[in-house]
Amino acid sequence: MAYFPSIDKVKFEGKETSNPFAFRHYNPDEIVFGKPMREHLRFAMAWWHTLTQDGTDPFGAPINERTWLSEDPMTTAKNRVDAAFEILDKLSMDFFCFHDVDIAPQGDSLQEFFDNLDVITDLIKQKMDETGKKLLWNTANMFTHPRFVHGAASSSNAEVFAIAAAQVKKGIDISKKLGGKNYVFWGGREGYESLLNTDMMLEQDNIARLFHMAVDYAKEIGHEVQFLIEPKPMEPSKHQYDFDAATTMAFLQKYGLTDYFKLNLEANHATLAGHTFDHEMYVARCYDALGSLDANQGDMLLGWDTDEFPTNIYDTTLAMYQVLENGGIAPGGINFDAKVRRTSFKMEDLILAHIAGMDTFARGLKAAAALKEDGFFDKEISRRYASYQSGIGKSIVDGNENLTSLTEYALAHDHVENESNHLELLKSRLNDYLV
Amino acid sequence: MAYFPSIDKVKFEGKETSNPFAFRHYNPDEIVFGKPMREHLRFAMAWWHTLTQDGTDPFGAPINERTWLSEDPMTTAKNRVDAAFEILDKLSMDFFCFHDVDIAPQGDSLQEFFDNLDVITDLIKQKMDETGKKLLWNTANMFTHPRFVHGAASSSNAEVFAIAAAQVKKGIDISKKLGGKNYVFWGGREGYESLLNTDMMLEQDNIARLFHMAVDYAKEIGHEVQFLIEPKPMEPSKHQYDFDAATTMAFLQKYGLTDYFKLNLEANHATLAGHTFDHEMYVARCYDALGSLDANQGDMLLGWDTDEFPTNIYDTTLAMYQVLENGGIAPGGINFDAKVRRTSFKMEDLILAHIAGMDTFARGLKAAAALKEDGFFDKEISRRYASYQSGIGKSIVDGNENLTSLTEYALAHDHVENESNHLELLKSRLNDYLV
Amino acid sequence: MAYFPSIDKVKFEGKETSNPFAFRHYNPDEIVFGKPMREHLRFAMAWWHTLTQDGTDPFGAPINERTWLSEDPMTTAKNRVDAAFEILDKLSMDFFCFHDVDIAPQGDSLQEFFDNLDVITDLIKQKMDETGKKLLWNTANMFTHPRFVHGAASSSNAEVFAIAAAQVKKGIDISKKLGGKNYVFWGGREGYESLLNTDMMLEQDNIARLFHMAVDYAKEIGHEVQFLIEPKPMEPSKHQYDFDAATTMAFLQKYGLTDYFKLNLEANHATLAGHTFDHEMYVARCYDALGSLDANQGDMLLGWDTDEFPTNIYDTTLAMYQVLENGGIAPGGINFDAKVRRTSFKMEDLILAHIAGMDTFARGLKAAAALKEDGFFDKEISRRYASYQSGIGKSIVDGNENLTSLTEYALAHDHVENESNHLELLKSRLNDYLV
Amino acid sequence: MAYFPSIDKVKFEGKETSNPFAFRHYNPDEIVFGKPMREHLRFAMAWWHTLTQDGTDPFGAPINERTWLSEDPMTTAKNRVDAAFEILDKLSMDFFCFHDVDIAPQGDSLQEFFDNLDVITDLIKQKMDETGKKLLWNTANMFTHPRFVHGAASSSNAEVFAIAAAQVKKGIDISKKLGGKNYVFWGGREGYESLLNTDMMLEQDNIARLFHMAVDYAKEIGHEVQFLIEPKPMEPSKHQYDFDAATTMAFLQKYGLTDYFKLNLEANHATLAGHTFDHEMYVARCYDALGSLDANQGDMLLGWDTDEFPTNIYDTTLAMYQVLENGGIAPGGINFDAKVRRTSFKMEDLILAHIAGMDTFARGLKAAAALKEDGFFDKEISRRYASYQSGIGKSIVDGNENLTSLTEYALAHDHVENESNHLELLKSRLNDYLV
Repeated sequence: MAYFPSIDKVKFEGKETSNPFAFRHYNPDEIVFGKPMREHLRFAMAWWHTLTQDGTDPFGAPINERTWLSEDPMTTAKNRVDAAFEILDKLSMDFFCFHDVDIAPQGDSLQEFFDNLDVITDLIKQKMDETGKKLLWNTANMFTHPRFVHGAASSSNAEVFAIAAAQVKKGIDISKKLGGKNYVFWGGREGYESLLNTDMMLEQDNIARLFHMAVDYAKEIGHEVQFLIEPKPMEPSKHQYDFDAATTMAFLQKYGLTDYFKLNLEANHATLAGHTFDHEMYVARCYDALGSLDANQGDMLLGWDTDEFPTNIYDTTLAMYQVLENGGIAPGGINFDAKVRRTSFKMEDLILAHIAGMDTFARGLKAAAALKEDGFFDKEISRRYASYQSGIGKSIVDGNENLTSLTEYALAHDHVENESNHLELLKSRLNDYLV
Repeated sequence: MAYFPSIDKVKFEGKETSNPFAFRHYNPDEIVFGKPMREHLRFAMAWWHTLTQDGTDPFGAPINERTWLSEDPMTTAKNRVDAAFEILDKLSMDFFCFHDVDIAPQGDSLQEFFDNLDVITDLIKQKMDETGKKLLWNTANMFTHPRFVHGAASSSNAEVFAIAAAQVKKGIDISKKLGGKNYVFWGGREGYESLLNTDMMLEQDNIARLFHMAVDYAKEIGHEVQFLIEPKPMEPSKHQYDFDAATTMAFLQKYGLTDYFKLNLEANHATLAGHTFDHEMYVARCYDALGSLDANQGDMLLGWDTDEFPTNIYDTTLAMYQVLENGGIAPGGINFDAKVRRTSFKMEDLILAHIAGMDTFARGLKAAAALKEDGFFDKEISRRYASYQSGIGKSIVDGNENLTSLTEYALAHDHVENESNHLELLKSRLNDYLV
Repeated sequence: MAYFPSIDKVKFEGKETSNPFAFRHYNPDEIVFGKPMREHLRFAMAWWHTLTQDGTDPFGAPINERTWLSEDPMTTAKNRVDAAFEILDKLSMDFFCFHDVDIAPQGDSLQEFFDNLDVITDLIKQKMDETGKKLLWNTANMFTHPRFVHGAASSSNAEVFAIAAAQVKKGIDISKKLGGKNYVFWGGREGYESLLNTDMMLEQDNIARLFHMAVDYAKEIGHEVQFLIEPKPMEPSKHQYDFDAATTMAFLQKYGLTDYFKLNLEANHATLAGHTFDHEMYVARCYDALGSLDANQGDMLLGWDTDEFPTNIYDTTLAMYQVLENGGIAPGGINFDAKVRRTSFKMEDLILAHIAGMDTFARGLKAAAALKEDGFFDKEISRRYASYQSGIGKSIVDGNENLTSLTEYALAHDHVENESNHLELLKSRLNDYLV
Repeated sequence: MAYFPSIDKVKFEGKETSNPFAFRHYNPDEIVFGKPMREHLRFAMAWWHTLTQDGTDPFGAPINERTWLSEDPMTTAKNRVDAAFEILDKLSMDFFCFHDVDIAPQGDSLQEFFDNLDVITDLIKQKMDETGKKLLWNTANMFTHPRFVHGAASSSNAEVFAIAAAQVKKGIDISKKLGGKNYVFWGGREGYESLLNTDMMLEQDNIARLFHMAVDYAKEIGHEVQFLIEPKPMEPSKHQYDFDAATTMAFLQKYGLTDYFKLNLEANHATLAGHTFDHEMYVARCYDALGSLDANQGDMLLGWDTDEFPTNIYDTTLAMYQVLENGGIAPGGINFDAKVRRTSFKMEDLILAHIAGMDTFARGLKAAAALKEDGFFDKEISRRYASYQSGIGKSIVDGNENLTSLTEYALAHDHVENESNHLELLKSRLNDYLV
């Protein structure tokens, strides 16, 4: 059965087309900066926002029209698998991502949940074999169920830790079964609400314990998967332990986990933490930890995670520039952790919104490639830091100086000349690269 | 000469007094939680906000009436030393802090600046010997002078790095001369404005280079001083490298500096970064890195560092609770990095504002001691995490479990019972401890 | 049937009590500033947060334990009426508030909804007659149902306007039936998401049309009720038309509605708009439009409406000061538009949280009364503005000056002396009034 | 004397040019949407940011290289006049704006200040006559001088009100002398720091008194000038009375000033108040009060007024769309209330930054014109609100309905169909119009 019977496979028609169901910029096999666009972008569909999200908001009831909904939860789950692969096909997306609870009903017991997962992952595997679509990453949802009210690995209740551990084991088993490239931990309720009743040290120790168990288990079953942590501030716990990229790197270093974990960075999480998306990406690069991306955008005037489909070409250009600097994002990818606005409640909006996001990233890729090819940033940066290529600067970088030698130098050279950054010119010129 | 001739030494008169120039709560030698209040609080005066700040804001001209100002910069500098020790005496404060540029004019050359510093630090040393007052910490101002427009250790100009190094050497020399307990690095312009023209990796490497040089130099001259970094977001660079406590710990771990550096945490910097002050203090404690405190408060409706004198007793209570949990703040202290409002432009406001801040911290100390003595937090936390004291919880903490064993446990125990946090009750009860 | 069988009527036991189910500060009949506390505070229970809220958040499933839930929606609705009056009784609250959808199921048609409302309001009326409890205000929920996806009176769909009008008529009818003191409009989705597709002028004209129809209808049926608008920014529409108190007063003036409408102000809405709660109250007073209060508190580090029970005694003190300045809040009251934290999911938390909020407001009332009795603010303000009581100041206020006369005066008096505000002292002294 | 001897008059060279001192988009006499670009854009230079700003920030000393600075203040002031007209000429800008204190030194008395203003305005008038350049608006700076520490018209000190009145009179006299099109009031310190010591009602009454005096005086001297208020939140007073456009309209209505005042809206002030720039413009249009624009941009991750030169083409496109909808901005204009970044401290940066801003607005104008010509918004809005063109919708708009009639209608039509907004598609399509 087709869930989008009136929509054909979306084709690249170029920017002059008036067909809303066409790509205007994303042309999967077009070579940009030496590779097909699809290999640069490695787009993934997010099961949750695309297939299970119902349009609810804190002030509104479910509204989304979704033709896969059935009275029977397992039938709905199976319908969603069909719909997922139809969407992947129609949008020429190569990857998908899911939480365990997105794909199968939890039933009345953990065993029933795991059994349901087996049934559905069999079905997904079959579809993957038929289509060649791939699992970018999966994760365990350890925050929605009431049992996680006080956290998962950081719960004050040890019984809850055990259930979290079981879901992680199942998640890694599924990752192996489906050939997943990465396995993600998003903190969920790993954080705290008030220090009045929180043992932050124990909670963080326990999170690290779970991560080490996960690493050990993947080794034990011979599954070479890249573990990823997705930083986020503020939600759902007021103080999330994985506030941002740097905070997460502090944690990973403290607990000896840097060999196994990289970061899955999300645009809207970056801005909520007070950073730009490309800042977070560059921070990750400084720690050789740029793993994968969650593509969306926030609203800079709103203080929560709005998870909008990306349409701002400044943001995607600067993000793709970091991807190019990183030598690509594989084995990670660009996952649309984005949901249609509540006012876009029709089935067709799922397609239209993905096209918008994919085209915006395609524009970003083309602009970033042009920036790289022209050496726009590179030349400016080389010019600015030239003083470290020779003389006293080189000697500093080479480790040949100390406070005493530099004091001697400084006393003899204390009237320095600095150059202007001409930042207004640079920002204006950046506009010329937008596609 | 006395700069506050009409104000006597401020005495503790208790909360019933109507004398604005009396302490209502701070009683230096009163024993609280086993120690005199002065030993818990280790108050310090900040030279900059108290002695050099002129009341300017981005929309207003200098306004503060300051009777130590002279036509001759060195005379002004000397007058300020007298004023400083008069203030320390009248307020019964034991410590002070300064940047190099606060205490001596920079003159026309680096050599002249250093010579001026020698003259003034001789004078300060003499006053210290006479009075027993102590240097909590000093630092080098590497952000105000135009040469630091692009940063100091992170400057794109290597000549600027050399000058920064010279100021740091001089700062450590002064620290040794005056018996300083700590030496602080506040990032200043160590950050960036735009990624369009920034080599973040080189900049951070260079900062680490300077820190290692400082550590080496202190060892070389045999000065055992605690180095401190003061995190801050947003100002003056849009993206400050030391955004918050966790970011700074990531950096210190990456560059092998954790043995030498702790954190100097400021209340207003915490809130600008999206955290509470006690959150930042607890994070530091998790890394055994709580070094010292900059006492002030921000305005939660304003987006910049307002550096107000602390008057909120919730904040000081929760901060002092962290201090007690840390076993005290020594060799750090509580430095009033706070400035009088522009509308408090009279000389007497300097005294009134410090009394307000010291009384508010004294209230906080008394409240925190009562919380500790009653076991308010401790009992709640013990109760909440009791499941990790025995059974499966203890086994997890002891390292005896793995994903497989926990899965087995979870499948047999998947209907967990959680308890309510009763957070509204806890918050209401906290009010009963406010003094 | 009793829903809180193990909890007795909550009594005032004073601050020394260790009974969590006692008032420590709220003593309904105690005379403060010339009136019983209950007459100052006029507390109301909010039907939605107390009786229908299920503990869901954007990342979590329903969790609240609520013993009134039944399979049959009308049975649940009737149970809630019993529970409501039990809560009102046990907490000695005199008032309640509701949206239409809180009290009765919407059924399958508008007629069925109205019929259900008739049944339930009969029951509520009977309970009111038995107990003497009163309706502070009611309102129509015109934002949750999917039909309101584009707004209600501001919907792009005229059919939706008609349904909104019908709900408002029913709401006013209910108000008359139950002797309601006020009728509230909270904007809900009256706002816009993007200007790309919005006719802001038409939308605001239409809102004004609905308001005039409401005024006309209340007159027609002879129901003298105070209409109130509740300002709020950001949620659920990005740009809410009633952003804050001043924005709403601009609207009311533009459309000739100031004779019929006052403001219902909420603490958390104030802070989301960048204001303090008492600022919004004072703005309303400037327009003689302080109508009623929604009592709660936000989290200053989070960017959305958290609707916490108020526990901050600074906020309640300053709010109650405005109430005293206003000569009281009647016919409005103080409605707990506050929800228990998700981690407070037990039935007893509903009682504990209201006690926390009521005690915090009682503290605020006592502190505000003391401030008023001591003339704390009044004396300071008289002193500051004394120059307008005589001389040139009085002449300005009396309207006897113009630019020419004042220029003449100024040229002769251009070296003015200003006084310090001593704001640090004032803030510190405010602490002494906190109870 | 030429201050920019090495820079020729900036010419339009088109987007392919590599000359940084050329316009790539702004072509003053090119016809766009029926008028030359210069008539649409009416660009103005701001005297303060361009001629007097020294590059200071709260953490940094003056840095800007400015060749017009002299030891003698009046010589500097005269040099700046020459420089201003050189910049206006080289950038083909037709207008300029200033505060009184920007153009002449204040001297030691008010009389001396006024005398200095007479000398300089004579010089400016002569230059205007020679060049045809025009005064867009002037204003009085009533916030920088220490005497305004407590405000100007809202000062607690009546002597300060008198001086403010004298400056306003002088400002209106200058406006008449120079043929100014508008006269601006920006609130400066008209706001409050704490309600603990503020009489908000008196302060606002006094502001209104000053405004009425200004209106009366302009009438008296026969100067037909458009008065403008510039809303701004947060700075320099925590609570500015003119928070945003709507707040200002509430004030103007309350005090009967709407016939004489319109709004001067600034992009960065809009975002600090929680709004978009085009939102503020549309709000003004709803009150027929869109007067003039201050062009700049803020940093959405920073909480203060950064006053950057505009380089974001989304913002300028949406702003220019509102200008077109308004039928143009005359007699207002687009004033660059923008300053070069501190790192752009060279003389040439003044030219480069204005080119960046002018080109960005030129792009915005061209994009807005294309949107208007294609009917991009118009068609969408017509489609969305079609239900108000006939049937029940038209009847509502025509005033023929009431709550009773609409209830009857709604009961018969309670299953409404809404359409999707397809907002993701719209946002993506907007990108195609960016130039």
